[in-house]
Amino acid sequence: MTSQRGLGVAVIGTGKMGADHVRRLQEVVSGARVTAVVDIEADRAKSLADGIDGCTAYTEPAAALAAQDVDAVLIASPGPAHEAALIEALGRDLPVLCEKPMTPDTDSALRVLEAEQRLGRRRVQVGFMRRYDTDYAKLKRLLDSGELGRALMLHQRHRNLDMPPGFTDEMLISSSVSHEVDATRWLLGQEITAVTVHKPTPTSHAPTGMNDPQLILFETASGALVDVEIFGHCGYGYQVQAEAVCERGTVRIGDEPGPRVSAAGRWGGHIPADYIERFEDAYDREVQAWVDATRRGETTGPSTWDGYAASAVCEAGVLSQREGGRVEVGMVERPRFYE
Amino acid sequence: MTSQRGLGVAVIGTGKMGADHVRRLQEVVSGARVTAVVDIEADRAKSLADGIDGCTAYTEPAAALAAQDVDAVLIASPGPAHEAALIEALGRDLPVLCEKPMTPDTDSALRVLEAEQRLGRRRVQVGFMRRYDTDYAKLKRLLDSGELGRALMLHQRHRNLDMPPGFTDEMLISSSVSHEVDATRWLLGQEITAVTVHKPTPTSHAPTGMNDPQLILFETASGALVDVEIFGHCGYGYQVQAEAVCERGTVRIGDEPGPRVSAAGRWGGHIPADYIERFEDAYDREVQAWVDATRRGETTGPSTWDGYAASAVCEAGVLSQREGGRVEVGMVERPRFYE
Amino acid sequence: MTSQRGLGVAVIGTGKMGADHVRRLQEVVSGARVTAVVDIEADRAKSLADGIDGCTAYTEPAAALAAQDVDAVLIASPGPAHEAALIEALGRDLPVLCEKPMTPDTDSALRVLEAEQRLGRRRVQVGFMRRYDTDYAKLKRLLDSGELGRALMLHQRHRNLDMPPGFTDEMLISSSVSHEVDATRWLLGQEITAVTVHKPTPTSHAPTGMNDPQLILFETASGALVDVEIFGHCGYGYQVQAEAVCERGTVRIGDEPGPRVSAAGRWGGHIPADYIERFEDAYDREVQAWVDATRRGETTGPSTWDGYAASAVCEAGVLSQREGGRVEVGMVERPRFYE
Amino acid sequence: MTSQRGLGVAVIGTGKMGADHVRRLQEVVSGARVTAVVDIEADRAKSLADGIDGCTAYTEPAAALAAQDVDAVLIASPGPAHEAALIEALGRDLPVLCEKPMTPDTDSALRVLEAEQRLGRRRVQVGFMRRYDTDYAKLKRLLDSGELGRALMLHQRHRNLDMPPGFTDEMLISSSVSHEVDATRWLLGQEITAVTVHKPTPTSHAPTGMNDPQLILFETASGALVDVEIFGHCGYGYQVQAEAVCERGTVRIGDEPGPRVSAAGRWGGHIPADYIERFEDAYDREVQAWVDATRRGETTGPSTWDGYAASAVCEAGVLSQREGGRVEVGMVERPRFYE
Repeated sequence: MTSQRGLGVAVIGTGKMGADHVRRLQEVVSGARVTAVVDIEADRAKSLADGIDGCTAYTEPAAALAAQDVDAVLIASPGPAHEAALIEALGRDLPVLCEKPMTPDTDSALRVLEAEQRLGRRRVQVGFMRRYDTDYAKLKRLLDSGELGRALMLHQRHRNLDMPPGFTDEMLISSSVSHEVDATRWLLGQEITAVTVHKPTPTSHAPTGMNDPQLILFETASGALVDVEIFGHCGYGYQVQAEAVCERGTVRIGDEPGPRVSAAGRWGGHIPADYIERFEDAYDREVQAWVDATRRGETTGPSTWDGYAASAVCEAGVLSQREGGRVEVGMVERPRFYE
Repeated sequence: MTSQRGLGVAVIGTGKMGADHVRRLQEVVSGARVTAVVDIEADRAKSLADGIDGCTAYTEPAAALAAQDVDAVLIASPGPAHEAALIEALGRDLPVLCEKPMTPDTDSALRVLEAEQRLGRRRVQVGFMRRYDTDYAKLKRLLDSGELGRALMLHQRHRNLDMPPGFTDEMLISSSVSHEVDATRWLLGQEITAVTVHKPTPTSHAPTGMNDPQLILFETASGALVDVEIFGHCGYGYQVQAEAVCERGTVRIGDEPGPRVSAAGRWGGHIPADYIERFEDAYDREVQAWVDATRRGETTGPSTWDGYAASAVCEAGVLSQREGGRVEVGMVERPRFYE
Repeated sequence: MTSQRGLGVAVIGTGKMGADHVRRLQEVVSGARVTAVVDIEADRAKSLADGIDGCTAYTEPAAALAAQDVDAVLIASPGPAHEAALIEALGRDLPVLCEKPMTPDTDSALRVLEAEQRLGRRRVQVGFMRRYDTDYAKLKRLLDSGELGRALMLHQRHRNLDMPPGFTDEMLISSSVSHEVDATRWLLGQEITAVTVHKPTPTSHAPTGMNDPQLILFETASGALVDVEIFGHCGYGYQVQAEAVCERGTVRIGDEPGPRVSAAGRWGGHIPADYIERFEDAYDREVQAWVDATRRGETTGPSTWDGYAASAVCEAGVLSQREGGRVEVGMVERPRFYE
Repeated sequence: MTSQRGLGVAVIGTGKMGADHVRRLQEVVSGARVTAVVDIEADRAKSLADGIDGCTAYTEPAAALAAQDVDAVLIASPGPAHEAALIEALGRDLPVLCEKPMTPDTDSALRVLEAEQRLGRRRVQVGFMRRYDTDYAKLKRLLDSGELGRALMLHQRHRNLDMPPGFTDEMLISSSVSHEVDATRWLLGQEITAVTVHKPTPTSHAPTGMNDPQLILFETASGALVDVEIFGHCGYGYQVQAEAVCERGTVRIGDEPGPRVSAAGRWGGHIPADYIERFEDAYDREVQAWVDATRRGETTGPSTWDGYAASAVCEAGVLSQREGGRVEVGMVERPRFYE
């Protein structure tokens, strides 16, 4: 399927994230090149395609996916556009890397789940890129090794300098905490069964009416307890930390990295400004892993089921956020296909 | 009141903690000496007194407190014996340092509160020694400085290597988490208004039937949210950490102290075995501060009200632990006397 | 020069380092592919080439460099073979990434320097890969920013678990400390003018007769003082650290990275086993940067002059090691070509 | 000798250090009280004595030492006055805690050494208080345990925010590095046999003509190599660090302590402003240890020999500083009395 010239990738969506993936595929990742870019804004797609040898601009995903030089699809358009593109790609049996959230709700996620099962083999990798961060990967290996015993609790912190205008309480969960939802499920190897949201008096730096920060509790299938501090306007940088409390020890990631400066009465270091600075390497590894697996004819990484499960947990979270109290997560039974 | 020879202190209770305070008063603290030791086990008291010049053994607190060379009282007997000793000391207008818990329940705590108010001046310091730990004191100063803005959340960890036989779920709160109750109230300068206890599947290293670890949530009067991980059988050492999440920054204490060794493929350091190793300096400072204030004719530090409030919060915690869900803390109105 | 299929690279030398570069060019780096592998052991070259689409095996560098599908050369053969390959590549105006040491001594280094100058443009990048390590790059940026003022001293540590059999005192300098020689020159932007080697009583884990560890002092052109602890048999892992002492602050890199585990009475983390684990990302970035620059028609990174200067400093170091005392570094004047 | 009221101490010298020791003896240390203060400035001594119950002011050490209520002597006068006070105290068989430097040169140190030997028992403890710092004590215990094997190298850093006017190159060694001289001898349990001073181009923040910072190398009797960075005007705080390089591991103290703040794009903590903030606890422990040992009738801690040896090393250092090159340390043979 892949020519000697590398995997031909159609990138759907050429906003900030899409354009960054185009750059990554062209300049960082080995074994792939961008042969199509798709955006409803024709000019933006064209100007991006013009800079790349052998790349065509499209306004319709379907047209791009039908092109002969397209071997695989990277979806980075806005969430509501994902379902149609995913269904189209699955219809053509094309491998997909789909940015998170896979789709905006569980109903649409279920439709994708069913389409992939009809196809009869995994074709979709969902963009939960923390799994490709060096420290998260080491944490996962350590937990899986059994060296520290079973994980009893997981403490997570997710802090942003601030949020773009229009960011809502709901988006704190569906856009931000969804990363911790996936990290929790992946690290512990279990589904999340209930969510409880707690809201302290908000920071005065959040927009009026927004509850920021929040503390989100997850319960998992085997009874582990997980807390997530989500703080959208912490005001000082981007900080992501996790600590697993196990039967024989605890392990923490996300602590202070990089050069340590002593100056003016203080020692310490720099805090990344945003997720791009913090997780740039993870994005690189994620896309490289997808290209590598695709060239081997495989689909690995977070699955359509992971995309669906994240949706279901986030929906429960948003309900708890709105109504208060503990909300159980409703999910269809996991198809054997995804086991 | 105090002779030139230093404050004469009667130590009530000569178990592990009482004996340690006797040693501290004799060998570490400046300006005090032990003139009386009291224990219902007459032999134990006598053998301790024999080693100290000018110290008399008693089996009855009342007799010791009536002695002419007793200027102040340190209560380190079991909790149920505290109330009588406190009332006796207040009746004689003697300054007291009373180990925590002040009394075993809120009813008895209220009676002490009333006795002290009748006396008309503060005479009791309660032994919440974390306020005298260097790092806690720095955290308090930083929060009070306003440099980081208002505290929105507080994350606390309290881990023990293991617990003595007979330790119960209730004691996890009344004996262990009571430290975090006081730390929370002191650091944030607010009362705790509600408690919710969450229990993951317990570690297999806890006794059968014990829920260990637990995650305890506090809500405070101004809406701050506090979580406490209490873990009685973490299996690797004694670890106490706290992180305040404020409007303009976060601050963490309790991280890895001491020499850093690199050997055999690992870098890192030693974790204290128990609270004595971890908080030895805090105990020294606590008792020195009490002696110093007493010699100046003052009573400082955690008050009878702090002892009462800790009881009230712990009772709510034990109820949440038993019945599940959120439990509001019932407290009498704070007397102006304690403002 | 580069086809759309990416830069065609001939890799000379297929030992541990060469084979790793082949893998890197094929699987990690974007925009290049290996079209030729060269080794005097014909079988080894052939078996490596057989696994790569469009790659030919050679036993002679000259033959490989003459091939039409070779756009650039990566030299990873033993040091004594570098000069001939470099001269050959320069004769054909081919871009080169040459593993360190560029050549085994300053005489041969000078010949390469002259050959490149005759060619009239930079074509050679020398493989000092620390410049591509994230932390070293941040340190360099910080020093160049002037934020901390002029660097007065530089403390460096370079520790290896152990050394291969046959490793000598001389190699401690020419093979190991040569990295600190380049790091020093690059970080401070100055030549090293004198070297003094100090030797404590050696560790009992070094081979008899070997002086390990050693402390090497560099003086630089503007009077900065640099000390390097080189320890070939530290016995616990691979550890590289650097601290710059500047007029307004100090900055340290190489401290404890990765997950922090608390278990069995100790907190801490893992120490890498070797330079491959520690600097894998730096090698990836180095080769990617070389491929990128080459495709743009440029040569960047450490130059032939840097290779020559490192040789000159190491020769002085070896002399000080042998004879004791301070040895001045003898270097030709820096050609304007390399300014 | 000591009354029940505690050790009666004469404090000689009531400058900054002496006054601080008076406060410490009265308010911090257990088992001692200040019964005499001595200063040639009669008013200063009197005003200090007036605030202390049972304390007399003197202008002559000899008069104070003859007083009946003086059981022991703490010497905190300027260095040149130490010898006379020490000889006087030894003549009266009084226990002494003498601030460092014991005396200003080796000749006077030798006279004290001889006086103490004539007396026939140790009576003098020299004020090298780092031995009483928690981290130094842990480092010493670790080295002595043999867990890491023999120490091969010791890296030390000693940085001051700035220095008082009039501070000279010589004083960098005799007043500042003398602490590292003692720490080295104590930690390694060996004499220092040679000193070499290296001077980079000085910081522009030092007074004109002063060489600051400097790197001082010590060689020890068994061949360990020690480097000390002394930096008098680092400009950002007081920082003291040490790292021992042993046969089976390395160990580092003096790293970043206390609360870690994340704010305004940076994580980190506070650096102490001066030695008082950094070593306050060590001073407290030092004086308490001296009082305790004295009350037991013993003399422990750094001896007269340690005071003499530090002088001898510092003299060699000052010579190397002045003349350049390596200077061997000349010392009398160690009397069996001090083994």
